[in-house]
Amino acid sequence: MDGKQHFSPGLDGVVAAETNISYLDTQYSQILIRGYDLIDLSKTKSYLELVHLLLEGRLPADNETETVKRKVNRASNLPADIVRLLELLPEHTHPMDSLRTGVSALAGYDRQIEDRSPSANKERAYQLLGKMPALTASSYRMINKGKPISPLQHLSYSANFLYMMTGKIPSALEERIFDRSLILYSEHEMPNSTFTARVIASTQSDLYGALTGAVASLKGNLHGGANEAVMYMLLEAKTTPDFEQILLSKLRKKEKIMGFGHRVYMKKMDPRALMMKEALQQLCDQAGDHRLYEMCEAGEQLMEREKGLYPNLDYYAAPVYWMLGIPIPLYTPVFFSARTAGLCAHVMEQHSNNRLFRPRVRYTGPRYENKSKS
Amino acid sequence: MDGKQHFSPGLDGVVAAETNISYLDTQYSQILIRGYDLIDLSKTKSYLELVHLLLEGRLPADNETETVKRKVNRASNLPADIVRLLELLPEHTHPMDSLRTGVSALAGYDRQIEDRSPSANKERAYQLLGKMPALTASSYRMINKGKPISPLQHLSYSANFLYMMTGKIPSALEERIFDRSLILYSEHEMPNSTFTARVIASTQSDLYGALTGAVASLKGNLHGGANEAVMYMLLEAKTTPDFEQILLSKLRKKEKIMGFGHRVYMKKMDPRALMMKEALQQLCDQAGDHRLYEMCEAGEQLMEREKGLYPNLDYYAAPVYWMLGIPIPLYTPVFFSARTAGLCAHVMEQHSNNRLFRPRVRYTGPRYENKSKS
Repeated sequence: MDGKQHFSPGLDGVVAAETNISYLDTQYSQILIRGYDLIDLSKTKSYLELVHLLLEGRLPADNETETVKRKVNRASNLPADIVRLLELLPEHTHPMDSLRTGVSALAGYDRQIEDRSPSANKERAYQLLGKMPALTASSYRMINKGKPISPLQHLSYSANFLYMMTGKIPSALEERIFDRSLILYSEHEMPNSTFTARVIASTQSDLYGALTGAVASLKGNLHGGANEAVMYMLLEAKTTPDFEQILLSKLRKKEKIMGFGHRVYMKKMDPRALMMKEALQQLCDQAGDHRLYEMCEAGEQLMEREKGLYPNLDYYAAPVYWMLGIPIPLYTPVFFSARTAGLCAHVMEQHSNNRLFRPRVRYTGPRYENKSKS
Repeated sequence: MDGKQHFSPGLDGVVAAETNISYLDTQYSQILIRGYDLIDLSKTKSYLELVHLLLEGRLPADNETETVKRKVNRASNLPADIVRLLELLPEHTHPMDSLRTGVSALAGYDRQIEDRSPSANKERAYQLLGKMPALTASSYRMINKGKPISPLQHLSYSANFLYMMTGKIPSALEERIFDRSLILYSEHEMPNSTFTARVIASTQSDLYGALTGAVASLKGNLHGGANEAVMYMLLEAKTTPDFEQILLSKLRKKEKIMGFGHRVYMKKMDPRALMMKEALQQLCDQAGDHRLYEMCEAGEQLMEREKGLYPNLDYYAAPVYWMLGIPIPLYTPVFFSARTAGLCAHVMEQHSNNRLFRPRVRYTGPRYENKSKS
């Protein structure tokens, strides 16, 4: 601790946990989830099957998928007082701040909160995942003129989620693409929000606390906030030439451009971004309007040419969510909602094999008073 | 990342940040705060002077102390909707969960929330510190039969804080001892809650988010929850022989005993604990009843003899808070409230010289699908 020890700012490259949940294998450009390739999973599985994989450690049999559906469906309504509580927040409250307050408040409804056993945490996770679509939609006051939106029992998890945010029942394509986006956002090794959740859980604090902290982390514009920033940039531009000018101008001013690059992937394109690029093309085909796709592709090419930077998931998820009709202030809350599955798995893992996180510092301040060495 | 890299569970001994705020110097058994010895500060300064030292980087002149007093005093009332919101929480909500929800909800009242400059963060910190006593008292529904408690304008910060929790105006001795406890809890290098706040702040998330995460961390019974656990143990025992039996029985069963040991101090007594031990003696003198002091001292001696473990701050702060009439469920919220000063300083420092926290993992799970090396 005397200044001689190695210090890696931001813990860059430092191994901070052992996990069997997921791994970004940069050597093979692969995102492993419980041993499976995430991109393959996103092509063949549903989000609720991913939830089962993350929480139970293995893919579900057909009847187990039905059980997951029933569990989250039964938990899909918010307590009335949670809706009232969110309505009490000042009108201009950021949706991520509302979501954070809502997740925090849910703790009081759990009478077994002190039970942090794997089975209790797992039930708690299913309950919370059931509530996330309604909580996410309720976090944004402008939806439906402030009237609470109730889930429709006959819709799937993802269709309902979209419906509660847009007020429209989605097409089969829209439902499938949104579900796929939830899979791609569901888990991603140990970004800041997952690290936050594990650090908090390591004090033996509970799942609600760990997830509340993770919402706070994901709000930051160096993390989850990036998808919204991308969409505002696209909307500001309107046309491909203007978008290119905006990007070039930001590059000249050395401003950070959201939606490009990732500390871990470095010189490779995020494979999740490619999936969302395909989805954007499909949605543009459905709409018969390819302007947004063309803008994004031009921006991608420009950034590769000028800076050697590749799009990350946020870059293509943002225009996909725009085409799906999701209000922009909900992009980051939706990201969080999808990530709840992975976060719950990490909290369960931390509680099961715990060591309190308590690193040290390198002190760079003054010293006015010396004690004699004791 | 391939399993060959060093991994220190809980980041034990790993330097995770540079700071000029504070440092636990185990070589000299000294807690340095901005270059000063914390124990010396606790003997000669007030909590609000510590607040100035932490937020401004230097001790205040007399007129500056008055400015701090005015600032926090002006901010001492909670928005009415925050009180209503806390009342909506289920009755058995843990006070730390209420406090977490309240800190989170305050974000919506800050119209400059996107301004993370040092000056904006500093003003925000004073505002928040002004509200912490009322928020802490309001987090525990049983106080004053659920009626909101308003601060009394003629009382000092610490006297008001005690008054709002106990309903009684404290004696001069009680006020001084409580103020001293706030100083001792105000800052302590980088425990889990401070680390949590810095990890969250590193995404450029705001002060409210960082502090909300820190409440979640401090709730854990391996961290802030320890002071309450100590008090319940003392109350269960009632007498010195029974207390010794309880400790011996826990030692035999290899149960963790709260209030003893600290990862960083290791084989030394926490110097803050000694200050609170003196305070406990003074309060027992005032009450003319030394039973609690005798129990604690006997427990201290037993633990040193049997395990070579020394009391930490929580061990003596708990009975001090009991003698001050603070309801036990508020011990950890009070700890958090005092620590708000240090936490705000850390968030400001993180925002001023930022690097996103994003460590890696060691993957211990299976691998079912291999990609060819790309």
